[in-house]
Amino acid sequence: MNFNIQPLPSALDDKLKLKIDRKAKPLGSLGQLEKIAYRIGRIQQSLNPQLKKPTVIVVGGDHGICEEGVSPCPIEITWQQMINMGKGGAAIGMFSSFYGWDMLVVDAGANYDFKPEDNIIDAKVAHGTKNFLHEPAMTMEECEKAMKNGADIVEGIYEKGCNVVAFGEMGIGNTSPASIILSKIAGIAIEDCVGPGSGLDDEGVNKKKATLKQAMQNHQNVESPMDILATFGGLEIATIAGGMLKAAELKMLILNDGFIITSALLIAQALNKNVLDYVIFSHASGEQGHAYMLEHMNADPVLDLSLRLGEGTGAVIAYPVLQGAVEMINKMTSFDDVEVTDTTGKGIRILD
Amino acid sequence: MNFNIQPLPSALDDKLKLKIDRKAKPLGSLGQLEKIAYRIGRIQQSLNPQLKKPTVIVVGGDHGICEEGVSPCPIEITWQQMINMGKGGAAIGMFSSFYGWDMLVVDAGANYDFKPEDNIIDAKVAHGTKNFLHEPAMTMEECEKAMKNGADIVEGIYEKGCNVVAFGEMGIGNTSPASIILSKIAGIAIEDCVGPGSGLDDEGVNKKKATLKQAMQNHQNVESPMDILATFGGLEIATIAGGMLKAAELKMLILNDGFIITSALLIAQALNKNVLDYVIFSHASGEQGHAYMLEHMNADPVLDLSLRLGEGTGAVIAYPVLQGAVEMINKMTSFDDVEVTDTTGKGIRILD
Repeated sequence: MNFNIQPLPSALDDKLKLKIDRKAKPLGSLGQLEKIAYRIGRIQQSLNPQLKKPTVIVVGGDHGICEEGVSPCPIEITWQQMINMGKGGAAIGMFSSFYGWDMLVVDAGANYDFKPEDNIIDAKVAHGTKNFLHEPAMTMEECEKAMKNGADIVEGIYEKGCNVVAFGEMGIGNTSPASIILSKIAGIAIEDCVGPGSGLDDEGVNKKKATLKQAMQNHQNVESPMDILATFGGLEIATIAGGMLKAAELKMLILNDGFIITSALLIAQALNKNVLDYVIFSHASGEQGHAYMLEHMNADPVLDLSLRLGEGTGAVIAYPVLQGAVEMINKMTSFDDVEVTDTTGKGIRILD
Repeated sequence: MNFNIQPLPSALDDKLKLKIDRKAKPLGSLGQLEKIAYRIGRIQQSLNPQLKKPTVIVVGGDHGICEEGVSPCPIEITWQQMINMGKGGAAIGMFSSFYGWDMLVVDAGANYDFKPEDNIIDAKVAHGTKNFLHEPAMTMEECEKAMKNGADIVEGIYEKGCNVVAFGEMGIGNTSPASIILSKIAGIAIEDCVGPGSGLDDEGVNKKKATLKQAMQNHQNVESPMDILATFGGLEIATIAGGMLKAAELKMLILNDGFIITSALLIAQALNKNVLDYVIFSHASGEQGHAYMLEHMNADPVLDLSLRLGEGTGAVIAYPVLQGAVEMINKMTSFDDVEVTDTTGKGIRILD
């Protein structure tokens, strides 16, 4: 699939920096908030950026690798939680409502047939992936179909006026594909990509590591991002990766989330590195592999609260900081319109 | 001054923990958000805590030590910015309005006479402190009067239904008293307590260090918290310390801010350590001494965005995370009321 993602032009960079520096405050004293405002201004190519209709797209899918006992949880939790989300429940339902987000729940590949009244968007490609210990998780056709579905859903919210998108996920077993994607894309030993965060005990973690290592050995010649995604990925991960690439093509701000969502971003940026121009990293997850992902992309996350719930919750919880940054660049008084002795011109800053 | 601050009872601890653990999510997966919810529940001794009428009290004062060139900024910025704040301007005016806070601006000791229309609460004790290089910044009477003013103002907002208070400050030169308070209370060499954050160049920082070191040598036998505050403090710092102690007496949640505000808290907790039961640390400041302060009080700040603007901005920006924590404990579905396979009882957690 091809996405036409423009790298961000630098034409406005100096004006954005100047606007932030002229705010009536010590130079640089709003720290990362200033960087966020600058970044949003660049993404929107505007000195007056606006965050519109923030929407979190929660995508669910099941995973054949669960047959190998890589998760302590029964897979029916995937569809049960998706139904809760469709009702506005679960953590992401509560937080997105509280923080002013629209939420869409998407079925990319749950092992369950939802009813129309479940309020879940049907983008089902299969009833879960295959067990990648023995065969590719998806065919390339399935993988591309999932990506296109994600792109189409993002295009739909864009057309309704949304310019901030986050992704969430629900899929028992999906730290396994995420760990392998991290290992393959960033070149990190699989053992370092698997954490205890899933609630597995030490024995369970060791078994998961061995299973994933064996799976990687069984598919040794898989190297391209699309092959990695199709062979080891999840239908929700493919859908999200496609959604991210489309969002960047449409110049939307992508507010990245935790371990699973970031594995989709790893694939997306390996396919087209320009996507990273449109990303703000919402938080550093408590899941250990996430730190390697952030490092690989030189990310500077907004929050570091050891969240590891998934569903897109980190992105939604970080959002008020972005809103504050936008408020600052648009509404904070500057030295040009306030009666305060401006000492910045002499290289002096106000602080104390 | 005496404040009757009750240490928090532990009677509700188990119930609070259970309520958070029964939420339909992997155990502990909301990380620090769970700790914040637990803390707020403890402070309010309630399983259904509520945040009411959050109010930031911004206190201004001038500093005689500015005669020694410890700040690159002219002292008139203190009153100029206070007037801007009184109009709802400055960074704190904008952020408190955006994040739903009430703001009070208090004159504890600016070197300026405000007019009634400036919308500034008159709690002036003096037109700035004395130059503590040569003489104590305040008399003990002035110091106690400022503390009582802070306590009275907090009592006023409490009576109007506020149960969350933050403090901000405006006072050119006030990193100098804050640095000495840190050095004296935490036992850290003054050189390590003075940073370049004020916008001073290296030469300026070295001069500031030498000045503060000399001042400490000139008042060698100052050891008690009240003597430290009166000798080296600021009128805004004393007012804030008194306000914090009263807030804890009234069982209000205190959302701590940056370097200057935390210096007031250092004094307050040295006078009565129970005050810390009522504090949540909003952020880790970009000002270098702040890390030592947080370490001294075993603090676990909510945000780490390198903010160093002061005015109470860090507290106000961190507030939505607290709101999310309270929303979670009150409204998130639990395993008791949702159709999801509960595996926590078997020591298994949901994650992936």
